[in-house]
Amino acid sequence: MTSKHYSNLDLINLVDSFPNAATHPVSHAERLGELSILVHNTHTLGYILPSVTAVLKDAKLSGTHWRFAGKVITLTGETTEERSENIRKTTESWRENGIFDILRGWRNELYTVYSPKGREYFRLERSACALFGVVHMTAYTTCPLKIWVPRRNPAKPTYGGLLDNTVAGGISSGMSVFETLVKESEEEASFPESLIREKAKAVGNVSYFYQRMKTAGGEEGLLQPEVQYVYDLEVGNDVIPKPCDDEVQDFHLMDMEQVRKAMSWARGRLTISIVLLDFFIRHGIITPENESDYLEIGSRLHRRLEFPTW
Amino acid sequence: MTSKHYSNLDLINLVDSFPNAATHPVSHAERLGELSILVHNTHTLGYILPSVTAVLKDAKLSGTHWRFAGKVITLTGETTEERSENIRKTTESWRENGIFDILRGWRNELYTVYSPKGREYFRLERSACALFGVVHMTAYTTCPLKIWVPRRNPAKPTYGGLLDNTVAGGISSGMSVFETLVKESEEEASFPESLIREKAKAVGNVSYFYQRMKTAGGEEGLLQPEVQYVYDLEVGNDVIPKPCDDEVQDFHLMDMEQVRKAMSWARGRLTISIVLLDFFIRHGIITPENESDYLEIGSRLHRRLEFPTW
Repeated sequence: MTSKHYSNLDLINLVDSFPNAATHPVSHAERLGELSILVHNTHTLGYILPSVTAVLKDAKLSGTHWRFAGKVITLTGETTEERSENIRKTTESWRENGIFDILRGWRNELYTVYSPKGREYFRLERSACALFGVVHMTAYTTCPLKIWVPRRNPAKPTYGGLLDNTVAGGISSGMSVFETLVKESEEEASFPESLIREKAKAVGNVSYFYQRMKTAGGEEGLLQPEVQYVYDLEVGNDVIPKPCDDEVQDFHLMDMEQVRKAMSWARGRLTISIVLLDFFIRHGIITPENESDYLEIGSRLHRRLEFPTW
Repeated sequence: MTSKHYSNLDLINLVDSFPNAATHPVSHAERLGELSILVHNTHTLGYILPSVTAVLKDAKLSGTHWRFAGKVITLTGETTEERSENIRKTTESWRENGIFDILRGWRNELYTVYSPKGREYFRLERSACALFGVVHMTAYTTCPLKIWVPRRNPAKPTYGGLLDNTVAGGISSGMSVFETLVKESEEEASFPESLIREKAKAVGNVSYFYQRMKTAGGEEGLLQPEVQYVYDLEVGNDVIPKPCDDEVQDFHLMDMEQVRKAMSWARGRLTISIVLLDFFIRHGIITPENESDYLEIGSRLHRRLEFPTW
């Protein structure tokens, strides 16, 4: 990873790596052919790798909460509570039996999976989401116009020592986007609540379909469609982010050129490229004149995902 | 049109109205079933309505520059020049014979149609683009944070009296995006060249697939996939746009609430909704908290088109 130089589009291809039906129908069909589909009625909630399906079918490990019909998998349960309880029992059994590496990062934090009507369909331990290929939702913020870039704790198993977004955090069950941002800003950068409420500005969202790489920790190839809500936070020189938990080692104030260079050498967590590319496009740093892939980048940053959200 | 109130997503549905294969596979297949496809090798350059295909097949009206194989139509010619000449002869013959209403708006302005490798494949009179369903590329600018909104000349046949973008113009053959912006800013709003070069900031692009409605002039249902390069131009109170050609009657300085209201009552040219919605999202006016269709709007504004661009 460290010896190759990546273009902006290379970075997108690494992150938004699941084939797109519209532009790559053959690879998309081939890839889908290998996967099982987690459904609610006829709607896709997530995609499941064969290695996960095999374990799901083992009632000793996974219980009897699952129904199988060819490629199609259903989680049983009449209510949101029942379904959440059933998938909890399954994933906790996997964790206890040490089945999947990715569950070593168990967070005790629940994400919501939505029905096609945007209602809560079930809740699921955050670290288990990629096993079912269900959509992640995240709130992000960047501080322009120089960017405060945190370097992750080198002792961390995932992305140790790499650059990260200023503040980012998954949206837990029952939390709104903005409340997630307030909470994470405090936890990750010691930003006071009043600063975020006053200055953080919603500026859009990005979305992509990530197939997890080795560097992400856990099994390779796990499926992670993601939606990220993006906020800009413009602060003066008097506001200095400070690490609060042990995720971040320290913050560096980098100018745009330094950030782009770090990105192009993949010195950051890969998925942050998406949010930063969107930042560069919104702020006229990447332009139609200096980036020949401008239009493709613009649509790739906003991939239409087939999974329901709220 | 004037008695209905439109949500943001309603407006997008009106403009990005061609069915999307990913989300509406059945309507997409049905729609494609009716159309012919203009190709270069195996690549789609545009879609053609049956009414246009019928005329294309009439050698007396259209010449013998076209090859037909089932649904697939090819424009003959070995070079860009030959192909441009062949399609020019066809469209001029149509114009002389009064075949299509939309050609009454003949502009004597050439648009470029690109090959899949992003090279110029042929050039085509602007007003004929929707007959072949090839992609339009436009440069747009809006002046935040109040928006200068022009009202079109009521005497104009298309969109007479409706609100429009501050400045917008199709990108002619041989022009770059930014040079188009400079030229149109002078022609449409009397903005000096130096102001645009200094202050206009590239902020991304929007794309959608429009099926022309009656109000757009010309035949209903003509196909117009569009890419629009968007620029923000932040100006002080001393900069006041003035109409220069006869397209615009006068400019009004409207605040965000007034603009949103005008949009929701469809008091503007419909396709400007797309650029304005993108503006509202980038500037935190539409937020995840006040717009329940936030994510869908975000991806719909950046539709992945199947047509080559540069």
